[in-house]
Amino acid sequence: MSFTEDNNSPASISATSRRELRELVRSQLQALLEQENLQGAKALLVPVQPADIAEAIEGLPETMQVIAFRLLSKSEAIEVYEFLDSSVQQSLVEEFKRQEVIDIVDKMSPDDRARLFDELPAKIVSRLLAELSPDERRATALLLGYESDTAGRIMTPEYVSLKENWTVGEALERIRSLAHVSETIYSLYVTDSARHLTGILSLRDLVVAQPEQTIGDVMVRELVSVQTDADQEEVARIIQRYDFLAVPVVDTEQRLVGIVTVDDVLDILEAETTEDIYALGGLQSGADSYFQTNLFTVARRRVVWLFVLLVTSVATSAVISSQQEVLQRFVELTAFIPLLISAGGNVGAQSSTVVIRGLNTDEISISKAPHVVRREAIAGALLGIILGIFVLFLAYALQGNWLVACAVGISLVAIAILASIAGSSLPFLFQAIGFDPALMSAPFITTAVDVLGVMIYLNVARAILLTP
Amino acid sequence: MSFTEDNNSPASISATSRRELRELVRSQLQALLEQENLQGAKALLVPVQPADIAEAIEGLPETMQVIAFRLLSKSEAIEVYEFLDSSVQQSLVEEFKRQEVIDIVDKMSPDDRARLFDELPAKIVSRLLAELSPDERRATALLLGYESDTAGRIMTPEYVSLKENWTVGEALERIRSLAHVSETIYSLYVTDSARHLTGILSLRDLVVAQPEQTIGDVMVRELVSVQTDADQEEVARIIQRYDFLAVPVVDTEQRLVGIVTVDDVLDILEAETTEDIYALGGLQSGADSYFQTNLFTVARRRVVWLFVLLVTSVATSAVISSQQEVLQRFVELTAFIPLLISAGGNVGAQSSTVVIRGLNTDEISISKAPHVVRREAIAGALLGIILGIFVLFLAYALQGNWLVACAVGISLVAIAILASIAGSSLPFLFQAIGFDPALMSAPFITTAVDVLGVMIYLNVARAILLTP
Repeated sequence: MSFTEDNNSPASISATSRRELRELVRSQLQALLEQENLQGAKALLVPVQPADIAEAIEGLPETMQVIAFRLLSKSEAIEVYEFLDSSVQQSLVEEFKRQEVIDIVDKMSPDDRARLFDELPAKIVSRLLAELSPDERRATALLLGYESDTAGRIMTPEYVSLKENWTVGEALERIRSLAHVSETIYSLYVTDSARHLTGILSLRDLVVAQPEQTIGDVMVRELVSVQTDADQEEVARIIQRYDFLAVPVVDTEQRLVGIVTVDDVLDILEAETTEDIYALGGLQSGADSYFQTNLFTVARRRVVWLFVLLVTSVATSAVISSQQEVLQRFVELTAFIPLLISAGGNVGAQSSTVVIRGLNTDEISISKAPHVVRREAIAGALLGIILGIFVLFLAYALQGNWLVACAVGISLVAIAILASIAGSSLPFLFQAIGFDPALMSAPFITTAVDVLGVMIYLNVARAILLTP
Repeated sequence: MSFTEDNNSPASISATSRRELRELVRSQLQALLEQENLQGAKALLVPVQPADIAEAIEGLPETMQVIAFRLLSKSEAIEVYEFLDSSVQQSLVEEFKRQEVIDIVDKMSPDDRARLFDELPAKIVSRLLAELSPDERRATALLLGYESDTAGRIMTPEYVSLKENWTVGEALERIRSLAHVSETIYSLYVTDSARHLTGILSLRDLVVAQPEQTIGDVMVRELVSVQTDADQEEVARIIQRYDFLAVPVVDTEQRLVGIVTVDDVLDILEAETTEDIYALGGLQSGADSYFQTNLFTVARRRVVWLFVLLVTSVATSAVISSQQEVLQRFVELTAFIPLLISAGGNVGAQSSTVVIRGLNTDEISISKAPHVVRREAIAGALLGIILGIFVLFLAYALQGNWLVACAVGISLVAIAILASIAGSSLPFLFQAIGFDPALMSAPFITTAVDVLGVMIYLNVARAILLTP
């Protein structure tokens, strides 16, 4: 996707009513197409932003999508196409006439094209590749050569490069001639004859410089770049950290091969956030959108985690089985098992959420682990004491037995402390041994705390109730 | 924070070793300051990016922070200061001499200054406001007049505005003269004599236009803007959706009052993500950073949610108490209570996570609720059957009683279906009645499913075991 640097996309609406307007465009478009009023539909779309047209087209029945798309002018069609979901892009490619496909695919940004090719069947990709213009074919083949989710795959090779010995005036001329085909003209890159990246400057630097100065005088020689194999999340974090508009991508010999721009980073961060949030919910995220995923695929993706958790739960069952004697004599103890383990699970989930999020945003580093675990243990103790006192009276009110109530209250304090220690230390442990700390998230902590909780509770109960 | 449009910040390091290098800068800086080697410390910081200098200063003992900060040149000091945590900004303000403070605060971007003033004691703020230059005072007072987390508060009034009747050549001259004081020169705004926003264009548009064309010829008249009271997350979503570099902020009379730029949006989205993730972990997020928050404050913030969950758990206890008879006769049933309710909780958490994330990213809308709940119920049934068969044999292996094992297996199927229905429908319900759907997240679903799970299990068990 390229920046909307040219702002060529109308719609004078304030944000509050934007969502309703989008809904309206979608339903109006469908109504007009059903009436076969193509002129009306065309007029409707004129003041609409490409991103919103894409959404409206996605909402149409599949047979109408091609018709709606053909209403657009050529330049608009390319912009809108880049905003479409990959599944819709795919079905359009299959519906289009050969020349239509080539016209659009040839004019897409190389990074968007690489993403589309990822989704299309290999046969169609090789046919399309063969029909692209030589420059575009080279650009796409370059990107497709890198692993998914790396800087090399998400970059665009369409940047402006300058030479050190050019004057500012010459550089501005060059930028003017490249403005239509470059992803951005605001970040400019200086390379030597072997394409090594030697400097960087911004259009702002050029605008304030004197026309007769050379690029070598104006550029910054020390710069931040990423390697082609850098993970996309790392690229995103660098742009976010340093407030960049774009970051250059270099190969192992420091030759400039492309750039990643901030607008792509916003989409990457959203995808990474979904992955993190899914991990916290005990889910694996897939590339497809929710409604396009087959339910058996959904079940298969979820069942793995559930099995792991279930096996952990078996330990809890085994602990309880081994303590049946005390439960047989004091059946009222059973009533508080779910309460205690769920309170423990919740305290542990809070601690693990704080640590996992802190590790993700670099606010907490692994070197601070002992400090964090100590803090969480104290917080857990405070919470345990508050909740324990409350539960003590509650248990007495429910069962009328002070000894049982004491067992419940004391256990809750111990469980809260242990849960917060487990919840805060396990993500660090996972990070240290090279796993994603998010795997140690709420569902896992909750299940792990179940075992500990039941063990503590039944032993405390036995000590209090069975002591002669 | 302003864009790093000028790239004036060195450091020629590839991304992979960046984290270790940051650690090294931090420890080296402290060592040099401890040896009182100020020249060495100064030299160390020369090739380091402002964001990294800020991080290194934050890692120093408080007494050294001022000394380190004073090593920086004036222009560097301002850049670094804007990257510092607000608590460190605050403590530096208190340590500085009066003139130092004014020098820095006067040169900060108005949006960063407003954020700092939010944190400082009111007495210091009014003293600082009085000492600012008139322009800066007006800019800051304007922002402080808007609610926190709105477009008005996070915008900057330092944009480039042009007039329709100017030529492209005149506009470029104007931009050149404003390049040093504007937040961005890449997005340009056209206003009439009453400051109404009438058009928008980009520096790219100007660069490719002919010098004698007028701005009115080149600009786009239909544009996307936000009102001053728009929520910051909405502003962020607009910039993300349309791939903008900046969005204009207008007052109720459509007068241009400021702009919000994409670099601020990255920070907003990170903060909003933390809030969402915290909600999923049953936590309330505070403005402060983890280590600066007092432990009693931490406990107070967490205990509210825990109490709500605990009270819900009491229902589970009550259900079990009412079924003591069957538990007394078949104590082996107890062993599977934690397993069943935790499996149910995990299935429910998966469904609620998918729905909450979908609602947040607009992938799922409330109009699709029946479709989504039906899908989740079927997924829940599939998962329940797979897990149920597994648990059936497991329960027999553990307790050697086929009737108990059947009760466990059948219950698990029913619990999984109910959990996925509850997990997917409750977030929609919350959204519909105007609450944040994230409140219906894993901890709550888990606890709610406990009640249902125990009820189903003990009733199924009674039907199977106590039927004559």
